[in-house]
Amino acid sequence: MGRNRVVSGMRPTGKLHLGHFHGVLDNWLKLQEEYDCFFFAADWHSLTTEYADTSAIRENTRDMVLDWLAFGLDPAKCVIFEQSMVPHHAELSLILGMITPVSWLERNPTYKEMQENLEQRDLSTFGFLGYPVLMAADIILYKATRVPVGHDQIPHLEITREIARRFNHLYSPVFPEPEALLTETPKLLGLDGRKMSKSYGNSIYLSDDAETTRKKVMSMVTDTDRVRRADPGEPDHCVAFNLHRIYVPQDKLDEIMPACRSAAIGCVECKKILAEFMVERLAPFREKRQELAAKPGLVDEILEEGSRRASEESGKILAEVRAALKF
Amino acid sequence: MGRNRVVSGMRPTGKLHLGHFHGVLDNWLKLQEEYDCFFFAADWHSLTTEYADTSAIRENTRDMVLDWLAFGLDPAKCVIFEQSMVPHHAELSLILGMITPVSWLERNPTYKEMQENLEQRDLSTFGFLGYPVLMAADIILYKATRVPVGHDQIPHLEITREIARRFNHLYSPVFPEPEALLTETPKLLGLDGRKMSKSYGNSIYLSDDAETTRKKVMSMVTDTDRVRRADPGEPDHCVAFNLHRIYVPQDKLDEIMPACRSAAIGCVECKKILAEFMVERLAPFREKRQELAAKPGLVDEILEEGSRRASEESGKILAEVRAALKF
Repeated sequence: MGRNRVVSGMRPTGKLHLGHFHGVLDNWLKLQEEYDCFFFAADWHSLTTEYADTSAIRENTRDMVLDWLAFGLDPAKCVIFEQSMVPHHAELSLILGMITPVSWLERNPTYKEMQENLEQRDLSTFGFLGYPVLMAADIILYKATRVPVGHDQIPHLEITREIARRFNHLYSPVFPEPEALLTETPKLLGLDGRKMSKSYGNSIYLSDDAETTRKKVMSMVTDTDRVRRADPGEPDHCVAFNLHRIYVPQDKLDEIMPACRSAAIGCVECKKILAEFMVERLAPFREKRQELAAKPGLVDEILEEGSRRASEESGKILAEVRAALKF
Repeated sequence: MGRNRVVSGMRPTGKLHLGHFHGVLDNWLKLQEEYDCFFFAADWHSLTTEYADTSAIRENTRDMVLDWLAFGLDPAKCVIFEQSMVPHHAELSLILGMITPVSWLERNPTYKEMQENLEQRDLSTFGFLGYPVLMAADIILYKATRVPVGHDQIPHLEITREIARRFNHLYSPVFPEPEALLTETPKLLGLDGRKMSKSYGNSIYLSDDAETTRKKVMSMVTDTDRVRRADPGEPDHCVAFNLHRIYVPQDKLDEIMPACRSAAIGCVECKKILAEFMVERLAPFREKRQELAAKPGLVDEILEEGSRRASEESGKILAEVRAALKF
């Protein structure tokens, strides 16, 4: 069998914020060193919720992939591609839909949840109902053996495994059942203390310049119980401190924490320290991003080449699928 | 715009019987003279109901296309192809699914009807629910302006028109709304008086040899009220007579009808007359079929070439679709 194969995709929502980086991308960077990896921009999936306004999907895809590359995802180590550039995803999705009971999709726990969360949009479409089928196709089209997921995504992967099992049972054992690579993804808080999310407008972006990053850090909520400068604070209740833990070195943290608890340091000063460490740590990525962005057509070239490589592989597996179907 | 474009497909159920010929194929022969026609073997559609046993689909496709060719469908006049050989059908189907409300599919009058008729199979799959989406893709992928349908298929075509309209409204006016080419298809009765259908085992096949055709005709039910040879019969109540009307020339019918009503002719003799006219009329098709069947690979070549031509055309239209989606 050789190395385990990993497939993972991200919906193109545009420039990535730190939540994406510390939740997903830094994990991808590790995976590309250990596994045979296929990473893709899931632009068809965007249509499941964004079908009424598709104008941003293309640019969002380019922006997102630029962030991937700036952060160190390397086309020499992994295959980076765009879902809609590999028609085999649509073909396998059509085939898998033929063997997937509607009841498996209706009982999908996130189906009704997402419909409720995005209630201003009409999500009662056939495509939205069927997104776990498309997701299954995305994964097994490359015979993935491992899929990086958080705890909340395990039910999705279970549908993929069930669909693969059903195909194998009905026709012939073409697909391995992909296993979860559970990834610990600490929930990153945004400027206002809620989960960092583009739609909340509370995000720090990888592509923000130093000045913007500083300003955003300085606007962050801290410990809301610390009303005056003279009050003692508690780092564990401080929103900004969830970033300190990532960006500020341990020896510096060992200084700051007691200083906060004794009111020896104020929030303004404390966030300035954070901002400088962040700006310094993010600088190389920002520079790399600017450098890459200055090369027009680079992302398109990488996606084209990656999609060609992905197609080559998926084409072989789709040929096995057709043979299993006796087509 | 040039000529109107017609798209029509047939599920590959194997060798064609006379019901297919007089219901669909003779109409296609006329259409290929007047319109820009795309005729396809709908093998993906077979999966909606035959997913549990796909072993016959490939051979059924070859047998069906051999009948098309034997009957005079001409690859020089129309494009003859296989649905699954043109991946654009799957791609457009995926896209159209994103904008199709599930409620349009659930209210499809044939949805529950077919589930009931084929109750021995589990048809509660996502693919079965979505077959009108795939059908819409099949048709509008070529910007068809006309679709040959019987009265009972008008609701299907209406879903296609609604989906095309919705796409045009959401993105840009890419698709014409295909109009129905209503075709009068007299219901052909089988040997036992029920509708001629492979699943009833009551069919006469285009590929049956002369002897088999004769035997089948002689076994046909006639007028069930005419119990004895001496009883007068009524051609309008005679099952075999639905074939007389097609195969026996008018002057001969003018002799037979009064002879039946006066019991001057018996059913055996009357069916012998029918059998001879049928055998004579079908002989050239049977010979042509044998001739074509003797060329191994011929059907595959025609389907490959037709699928290449279809892809060329559908590729252009799919590029328009992607542009409309701003992908």
